[in-house]
Amino acid sequence: MRQGEIIAIGSELLLGGRLDTNSLFLTEQLASLGIEVRFKSVVGDRLAHIAQVVRTASRRADVVLLTGGLGPTQDDVTRQAVARVTARPLRRHLLALEGMRQRLAAWGRIPTTAQFRQALIPSGADVLPNPIGSAPGFALTWKKTLLVALPGVPVEAEQMFTTAVVPWLAAALGSERRPARPVRPDRIERRLLHTFGLPESEVEQRLQPFVRSQKSVRCGFLASPRGVTVSFLKVQGGATARSAKKDGTLDRLVRAARKQLGRHVYAEGAETMEQVVGRYLARWGLVLAVGESCTGGLIGHRLTEVPGSSAYLDRVAVCYSNRAKVELLGVPERLIQRHGAVSAEVAAAMARGIRIRSQAQVGLSVTGIAGPDGGTPQKPVGLVFVGLDAAGFGRGSRVGAGRVTREFRFHGPREAIKLRASQAALDMLRQWLERVR
Amino acid sequence: MRQGEIIAIGSELLLGGRLDTNSLFLTEQLASLGIEVRFKSVVGDRLAHIAQVVRTASRRADVVLLTGGLGPTQDDVTRQAVARVTARPLRRHLLALEGMRQRLAAWGRIPTTAQFRQALIPSGADVLPNPIGSAPGFALTWKKTLLVALPGVPVEAEQMFTTAVVPWLAAALGSERRPARPVRPDRIERRLLHTFGLPESEVEQRLQPFVRSQKSVRCGFLASPRGVTVSFLKVQGGATARSAKKDGTLDRLVRAARKQLGRHVYAEGAETMEQVVGRYLARWGLVLAVGESCTGGLIGHRLTEVPGSSAYLDRVAVCYSNRAKVELLGVPERLIQRHGAVSAEVAAAMARGIRIRSQAQVGLSVTGIAGPDGGTPQKPVGLVFVGLDAAGFGRGSRVGAGRVTREFRFHGPREAIKLRASQAALDMLRQWLERVR
Repeated sequence: MRQGEIIAIGSELLLGGRLDTNSLFLTEQLASLGIEVRFKSVVGDRLAHIAQVVRTASRRADVVLLTGGLGPTQDDVTRQAVARVTARPLRRHLLALEGMRQRLAAWGRIPTTAQFRQALIPSGADVLPNPIGSAPGFALTWKKTLLVALPGVPVEAEQMFTTAVVPWLAAALGSERRPARPVRPDRIERRLLHTFGLPESEVEQRLQPFVRSQKSVRCGFLASPRGVTVSFLKVQGGATARSAKKDGTLDRLVRAARKQLGRHVYAEGAETMEQVVGRYLARWGLVLAVGESCTGGLIGHRLTEVPGSSAYLDRVAVCYSNRAKVELLGVPERLIQRHGAVSAEVAAAMARGIRIRSQAQVGLSVTGIAGPDGGTPQKPVGLVFVGLDAAGFGRGSRVGAGRVTREFRFHGPREAIKLRASQAALDMLRQWLERVR
Repeated sequence: MRQGEIIAIGSELLLGGRLDTNSLFLTEQLASLGIEVRFKSVVGDRLAHIAQVVRTASRRADVVLLTGGLGPTQDDVTRQAVARVTARPLRRHLLALEGMRQRLAAWGRIPTTAQFRQALIPSGADVLPNPIGSAPGFALTWKKTLLVALPGVPVEAEQMFTTAVVPWLAAALGSERRPARPVRPDRIERRLLHTFGLPESEVEQRLQPFVRSQKSVRCGFLASPRGVTVSFLKVQGGATARSAKKDGTLDRLVRAARKQLGRHVYAEGAETMEQVVGRYLARWGLVLAVGESCTGGLIGHRLTEVPGSSAYLDRVAVCYSNRAKVELLGVPERLIQRHGAVSAEVAAAMARGIRIRSQAQVGLSVTGIAGPDGGTPQKPVGLVFVGLDAAGFGRGSRVGAGRVTREFRFHGPREAIKLRASQAALDMLRQWLERVR
């Protein structure tokens, strides 16, 4: 199996203020091309440091992917670093220049002197056109290692990987004459199962017998406020036709795991909770309305990250004041006085209120204490109530009608409690949507 | 200046599905202790690979910080990897065992066999207690390099860094007898200026004269949907008293930069847009209500990430349907029919409607097309209108009264358009709050 290495360039990635989302995307893409990423490095904007990392990576990897440091500003020195390491002086590349000019012209802009620097490419390198931004990438072969440089902006890097890097890598790898390494990339198979509602140790315990019996599969567990994700990884080495074929091991394993974890599995692969919920709502033609309190709009935000969500989401009322709960959701003032805004009774009234006012089929609500202040011994920070109220639909309009309220106690800082509460509410909705068929 | 290196452990970090947020926090913390992080590595859950990275890092760094791989599951092998590299066999550590037992008992739980593995620590290492989770960390000195291992869960790693790692490092560094390196850490000074509304090249152009004249300061630019962030970094080398003192260079530079960038600067340092907006609202005792459409709750979510936001946020109405806009915000149906839901007129009516209905002093609204579908030649994807409607307050209730509507055209995928739109709306509010005094 070929070795790949990713180098993310940018002092901001080291010094905080920005998350490196590119590497994750690129690792997955390389894996699907049969290139295993064992190491990833992050390095600042210093020419000497970048050069050092590029040298180390080139020694141990077949493919080195650099992201970042191709912009127009003085701290963008990736092209200089690659030029120095490979001893290929920078030249103004006409194709890169022309592409940049056209792109800027389409935006009604004229390239500045600084932007012209972006057309400097190590001599002999191939230009990778950037269909979105102004900075082109480049790729070259150096001492049998393939070096690819992409901009740091995630949207640009992702698009360029598909449109330019994949064909370039295919051509470069295909043209090699190294019989010891198969031209056709080996297969890496990976499966993800996302669960909610079980602690990590419980998930592992339930899967132990299956995982142990499969020596060729590596199993990983990852806990986050979104739940526990189980990954199954199978790398098929060798170049024979037999080993390169999928043998169904992972399919069987995933089926067995799903059985063990039952209703706690909410999604597979890259699908998110909000996509699953949206898929069910769209399939059954249901409309949803949400009344949020402590989650502050996060449920609405997550639901609307999914394209086409306007088909099944009518409205979200974030009621941070009691008055808003009364006015927007029709929660009886007395109920709040008697039980407090954070109570099962108010959660139920919120879900019912938003459903009736919006004429949606399903109402979902969350009320709780996100902290760090506002907790009491009786109602501590992290106490959250989720409510669901369904009008019923289908034959005789009674299918799926009903009400559910659940109490949760979450730990952690404010952001984690908000995220856990939003996940709990969406998961309750997901389970209801699965049962209701 | 001392060299630090961070190693993030976990196949999930390489293979996607999770962002490594720890490293950013740790880099900043180490920098504030005078330890410069030049390189960061990410490596999967393989013992041999982890050992390789630990060896490389130990050769070039004074302090190596490992995060992740300390959990109870089979794929957690960080302690084994460190034991192998340093040739210190794992021993059950009584302090670690007891701490874990107490923590779990407080949650009403008994440690499982798998969790007992977490009390295994390389012999001679110091235990770093984990006040939140079950896995303790550990620290040891190996061939003059300080090796520190922390859990991968961000909340735990962050808290442990402050409570356990800082004192351990201080003691370890203080007890060294190496006169060539000063015991007292040198100072690293870093400033961040966050701007919105100017392209990256324009920001750099405006700052060029100041940046060029300061050879001792490194200036970096970072563009994201939140705007362009400028960082100023000054590393003071040497061990003399003079150089270790802050000389005010950065203060002067930041003042000059603020002048050049004017109203586009919305925050400094770690402060976020939502914190700035919240600070102003709280200071002037104003209450805000928001009517969102294409941002889907993201503005509410961002505002409520700030502790205490319930003091100034009354409600957020996310109106994904036209009917919701009419019912919750009182937008006249005719207005929507005449101008369309995505129009300056509707944005203005939304801001006014939510303000009046909620009796808040300030109403903020967003309507637009987040895409990828729903665009037309006249109203393309990325077209966004932001509205602001203020009742006026203060002397005679006329201070700050007024209405603003602005049109934006954003590019990029759905998530980026939502984020840019939320930032544009909050920035409009921020500028209004700054002017209104």
